[in-house]
Amino acid sequence: MYRTNTCGELRIANLNQEVTLSGWVQKARKFGGMIFVDLRDRYGITQLVFNQETNAALCEQAVKLGREWVIQVIGAVTERSSKNPNLPTGDIEITVSELNVLNASETPPFTIEDESDGGDDLRMKYRYLDLRRTPVRANLELRHRMAFATRSYLNDLRFMEVETPVLIGSTPEGARDFIVPSRMNPGEFYALPQSPQLLKQLLMVSGFDRYFQIVKCFRDEDLRADRQPEFTQIDCEMSFIEQEDILSIFEGLTKYLFETIKNIDIPNFPRITYADAMRLYGSDKPDTRFGMQFVEIKDLTEGKGFGVFDSAEYVGAICAKGCASYTRKQLDELTDFVKRPQIGAKGLVYVRYEADGSLKSSVDKFYSPEDLKKWAEKAGAKPGDLLLILCGETEKTQKQLSELRLEMGNRLNLRDKNKYNCLWVIDFPLLEYDEELNRYFAKHHPFTSPKPEDISLLDSNPGAVRANAYDLVINGVEIGGGSIRIYNSELQKKMFSVLGFGDEQAQAQFGFLLNAFKYGAPPHGGIAFGLDRFVSIFAGLDSIRDCIAFPKNNSGRDVMFDAPSTITQEQLDELHLKVDWPKK
Amino acid sequence: MYRTNTCGELRIANLNQEVTLSGWVQKARKFGGMIFVDLRDRYGITQLVFNQETNAALCEQAVKLGREWVIQVIGAVTERSSKNPNLPTGDIEITVSELNVLNASETPPFTIEDESDGGDDLRMKYRYLDLRRTPVRANLELRHRMAFATRSYLNDLRFMEVETPVLIGSTPEGARDFIVPSRMNPGEFYALPQSPQLLKQLLMVSGFDRYFQIVKCFRDEDLRADRQPEFTQIDCEMSFIEQEDILSIFEGLTKYLFETIKNIDIPNFPRITYADAMRLYGSDKPDTRFGMQFVEIKDLTEGKGFGVFDSAEYVGAICAKGCASYTRKQLDELTDFVKRPQIGAKGLVYVRYEADGSLKSSVDKFYSPEDLKKWAEKAGAKPGDLLLILCGETEKTQKQLSELRLEMGNRLNLRDKNKYNCLWVIDFPLLEYDEELNRYFAKHHPFTSPKPEDISLLDSNPGAVRANAYDLVINGVEIGGGSIRIYNSELQKKMFSVLGFGDEQAQAQFGFLLNAFKYGAPPHGGIAFGLDRFVSIFAGLDSIRDCIAFPKNNSGRDVMFDAPSTITQEQLDELHLKVDWPKK
Repeated sequence: MYRTNTCGELRIANLNQEVTLSGWVQKARKFGGMIFVDLRDRYGITQLVFNQETNAALCEQAVKLGREWVIQVIGAVTERSSKNPNLPTGDIEITVSELNVLNASETPPFTIEDESDGGDDLRMKYRYLDLRRTPVRANLELRHRMAFATRSYLNDLRFMEVETPVLIGSTPEGARDFIVPSRMNPGEFYALPQSPQLLKQLLMVSGFDRYFQIVKCFRDEDLRADRQPEFTQIDCEMSFIEQEDILSIFEGLTKYLFETIKNIDIPNFPRITYADAMRLYGSDKPDTRFGMQFVEIKDLTEGKGFGVFDSAEYVGAICAKGCASYTRKQLDELTDFVKRPQIGAKGLVYVRYEADGSLKSSVDKFYSPEDLKKWAEKAGAKPGDLLLILCGETEKTQKQLSELRLEMGNRLNLRDKNKYNCLWVIDFPLLEYDEELNRYFAKHHPFTSPKPEDISLLDSNPGAVRANAYDLVINGVEIGGGSIRIYNSELQKKMFSVLGFGDEQAQAQFGFLLNAFKYGAPPHGGIAFGLDRFVSIFAGLDSIRDCIAFPKNNSGRDVMFDAPSTITQEQLDELHLKVDWPKK
Repeated sequence: MYRTNTCGELRIANLNQEVTLSGWVQKARKFGGMIFVDLRDRYGITQLVFNQETNAALCEQAVKLGREWVIQVIGAVTERSSKNPNLPTGDIEITVSELNVLNASETPPFTIEDESDGGDDLRMKYRYLDLRRTPVRANLELRHRMAFATRSYLNDLRFMEVETPVLIGSTPEGARDFIVPSRMNPGEFYALPQSPQLLKQLLMVSGFDRYFQIVKCFRDEDLRADRQPEFTQIDCEMSFIEQEDILSIFEGLTKYLFETIKNIDIPNFPRITYADAMRLYGSDKPDTRFGMQFVEIKDLTEGKGFGVFDSAEYVGAICAKGCASYTRKQLDELTDFVKRPQIGAKGLVYVRYEADGSLKSSVDKFYSPEDLKKWAEKAGAKPGDLLLILCGETEKTQKQLSELRLEMGNRLNLRDKNKYNCLWVIDFPLLEYDEELNRYFAKHHPFTSPKPEDISLLDSNPGAVRANAYDLVINGVEIGGGSIRIYNSELQKKMFSVLGFGDEQAQAQFGFLLNAFKYGAPPHGGIAFGLDRFVSIFAGLDSIRDCIAFPKNNSGRDVMFDAPSTITQEQLDELHLKVDWPKK
């Protein structure tokens, strides 16, 4: 038997017990005639003590132990003379009587401590050592607990987890598929699912009523910082329900997770329409941990000879509380921030509402203090506050103002990682117009149902049609979203025609779903949460990568595995494939 | 709101309540002035009644309802005049006051009944309709419950579920990989994992201590009846444990599932060595629901002039209780059975131990009744029994005798699907000799640990070395298996040398694991159960296909999805691939 106890469980109550422990040497130090070793496993750290006086031979063995060696010890639980209140096992130590080295270790390329000295690349290459660090392992433990609690919650509500296939057919619409050549069907390919969307809708046609799956999804996209080619969704679908049922069940799930995992009681989630979210925050995933809502002041700025505002479609302000004292340098920084190519504003107008009640702005040439006062009043500014104003084409400017708002949130420490603001964004537009391709695209997917009261607009003003679609946003991060689906064939045909799909094309791309719908599809809808993001939010992480055991880098590469890699000619021949790329 | 209740929950206690139900029309029939409709959903069936006398207009609507239409009704719970004791809702019916057709249905291509009139191919093409049938859906519900209970059990024992990547590197050893071309790294490929074996061992190096995952695995093999290109494993690994720990925890899991899912109490699992399993059953996955163990009678047959036995390495008998009365025809059938090319025996010898105590055999020319009596005694035969005897090269003959034993088990109805016999097969050989390639292969995988007492045989007699490897067998089906792994570098080197791997080759194929092992690998081992087979056994199914929502056929094809399929030239170009196969 390798151990009687873990390294995290012995307490003063175990005094004088003879125990066997196994684990890794966290550190060893000599002190007088003693050697102290911190022994670590997943469950904690226990101090071992080797006494030169009582057992010289053992000490000689112990002195050779290096960091990360795997050892087994037998010894007695004794009370520490100097206790460590920061360690659950800090009241005791093990006076070792027998030591077995199970495995030696080379010196690891970086320290296995909460704060490691290893850079990103090194830690990714030796991911198995990085995973030894307590905070990294804690992220994975959190992920396990969240997934497990999610399953419990959904199982209690009679959701059935159904595994859908990973090898499916390629559907050209949407993002790019990863494809898998079929050896048994040469020249043909499977695709890896971007989501089980069509399959879960089929399961509703099958009468499964309440489906869920925690499932890997795949998208062959150029990776941004927070994207992975494979990611995990909590995927759900329900029949005979309305939007309200889905919101209430998945708001319940979110609250349940906060409560059971983090012991935080979250109040009922506010709901905001997409239109309001854009108007007030310039974003469909607003961070509502702080206010600083947009105020439109176009009407107050007109006709004073300031051409920039006069010619702008939109003039919007945010009020930064207590920032009237911002220096020239700080204001220049903000101007530079909004002028960065990623944001793209032409400039930034500010109004300082000084503590003494006077008003100073970068547009004093055009506007009187009375004019500025009106802006300040509309924005709810008080003496000591700072107005920041952007103008231009409405949608673009709102997005820029949104970035500025988040930046100000950061500067004012209003985005506390330990505070959680959840909200539903609802009433998304059904369609998005693509200027380049000169056609409408489904914002969610072609099976999303329009709001019944907007169906009549499908012909006259498709862009104004709102969908029964919703997103869950926490702290400015889109955790997931979903929609009520179309289940009526006539409406589906109408939708395809708005999207410019001919019957034939619709049949080719979604044939099996359309066929299935002929045999009695129930009203249904669903939602999917991104598990990686959800865990990141719970863990207070900046990147989803840190809650994935073996993530890929921005080139889609697993540097530890050295994957992807070349394969043998034999493998290619069996698949009847040729690579049209110069060999390395 | 689409419903106040499901179709499975209303009882006599709900009498006179006004309810709303939604579901599918299972069947509709006219009877006198009434129309009766069976309304079905996932939860059950409720009878609806439309009364011509009290509501003629409604009846006119109802008479149009076809099979599988989706409807919503409002009505009152009333007591049935003729109750149906076979239906949980059989005491009541709904007297309908309002009917809404939610969706019509074309006539389905086969009946949605427990016993359908649809053939296999048709049902696979319309899998979404096949899944509507209660027994099919029940298999998927069972699968959900087994997976959920497995997670609960393992979570309680502090196992952590860790998701390992689906896009990994190709490892040439083992079965054939599915590969995935990387667009971002042209000419390079990911592979889909055949199992997370190496990754879970890395997690042990990372100190995760107890890992599990219910995970999809992929093998590009030519499919046999009971193989799928993607399948699901309950995959586990533990550190600081010995074989006994793994057997006890996973015997516990199996018992827990039988108890919670099927309410069956399974006694402690017998254990049998691989050697005994081969000797007594000719199989490493013996069906122990019945005895009929092999008896070796070579010693009793020699020197009587029967050359066939005399020249055979092995002569083995099984005793079929009560079969002395088998007719010539029946015996011929058995002879034909063992002579089939798949089995390949040269012939079958029988001995009838007649009820009157006399003995008659197909080899009476060579053996006296006294000789035969000795055989019968050794085989534990009693008057009325039948001995069936095969001979030849030991291993081959044992396999043939195993097939004959199973056939006799079938004929004698000894293989009851409602009886469950679980056992551990242990002490598997570490290595298997490949005559063709003239080298040893790892029977399990190259990281499986030999039994410590056999390590010294690695040089002198590698074929005799037993592994710390084990399989769980239920009713003759291998549910899963695993092993204790090598964690000592020296022993690993030795193992590679026995397998004929050079250092370089070992490094190329398993480099990252060997590197990881340099930094303090703990003693570890694991196991993996095939979830598909496990569910099949619980469900009493003949094929794993029936417990998979969207399975593939024997050509690896999903006929519903029509996958795999050709992809666009654009997709191929982006991947820098050319297909070397004539277009269809």
